[in-house]
Amino acid sequence: MSEEQDKKQQSHQKKMEKLKDNVDASIAAASTERGVGILLTGNGKGKSSSAFGMVMRALGYEYKVGVVQFIKGEQLSGEELYVRDKCPEVTFHQMGTGFTWDTQDRSGDIAAAKESWAVAEKMLADKSYHLVILDELTYMLSFKYLDEDVVLNALRNHPTNQSVVVTGRGGGSGLADWADTVSEIKEIKHAYNSGVMARKGVDF
Amino acid sequence: MSEEQDKKQQSHQKKMEKLKDNVDASIAAASTERGVGILLTGNGKGKSSSAFGMVMRALGYEYKVGVVQFIKGEQLSGEELYVRDKCPEVTFHQMGTGFTWDTQDRSGDIAAAKESWAVAEKMLADKSYHLVILDELTYMLSFKYLDEDVVLNALRNHPTNQSVVVTGRGGGSGLADWADTVSEIKEIKHAYNSGVMARKGVDF
Repeated sequence: MSEEQDKKQQSHQKKMEKLKDNVDASIAAASTERGVGILLTGNGKGKSSSAFGMVMRALGYEYKVGVVQFIKGEQLSGEELYVRDKCPEVTFHQMGTGFTWDTQDRSGDIAAAKESWAVAEKMLADKSYHLVILDELTYMLSFKYLDEDVVLNALRNHPTNQSVVVTGRGGGSGLADWADTVSEIKEIKHAYNSGVMARKGVDF
Repeated sequence: MSEEQDKKQQSHQKKMEKLKDNVDASIAAASTERGVGILLTGNGKGKSSSAFGMVMRALGYEYKVGVVQFIKGEQLSGEELYVRDKCPEVTFHQMGTGFTWDTQDRSGDIAAAKESWAVAEKMLADKSYHLVILDELTYMLSFKYLDEDVVLNALRNHPTNQSVVVTGRGGGSGLADWADTVSEIKEIKHAYNSGVMARKGVDF
């Protein structure tokens, strides 16, 4: 090793030792072991895909997973096809209407939201589910299709061993207060705005 | 339907018609069909899980997927176990060292990074891959383990039908310029900071 390389290695080692100390200190500081509530919000790409990534993570340990989707398109997307066809250990429920801006029928949408919420509520009371995903739930609150107090009450009382992930833009302070972890996914730029179409296997 | 309900429905329908017009206009404006480059960055939870959600999405259409992980922990995490055991259609490569702050060996880390990059470079030149995930690649650039020009050159020249997802904090302006879509995942809060341990099946 040349003198210069040696210096680089020493300086590198110092930096990495410090980083390791910081990482180790954070790990030591956390001591409570329980399921968590996660809110993935913001206007950028990556909220639902992150939730489905956690589905894959839970399946890696053969945990039971529940997914309720409160908004769906006309066709099943890739991850929905995958979960439905390849993952019998996932209980998968989709609200039985299209996008709310396509149906334009408020009372029909409310009925559908309430029916899907009933499915979610059962999962949130069932400790056999290690992970429950409530995809696009935030819109049901912002459109006032579901009562926020009812939703928050069920979320607050999920079993200790269970983790719950809520996705969607907005969501309000009630959801943010409830969640242990909140990530805001900010759009810095999107292919869409340069005229590139949504991509099969990536965007849907 | 009461008069009040009727009013609510009419106002709802107007709002939703407007929303539908906006959504439809955005869809009509995008006309280029090709694979995209995506950068998932920021300090919040959801970067790698979002990438693995896209893996699931691509698998829903039975597309071929490649994953290269440039940083790994001592144990395989849930999504890694899942991909390795349940997804033979995914080519999965992990850098053969632990966290760089654990090894504290700069020249060993550089050699490992270069070896993993060679795997990634092959995928980026192979159009049979519909989706390539380069998990935690940003750190290899910020630690200067890999040459940025070499990396950017391969990224810029990926096959038209292929999409590429790069994850990790930071990444620099070169990666951000390259990407069609950039999401910054901001930590608003994290369970960690309230003393809650990382959760199996959710965080790893």
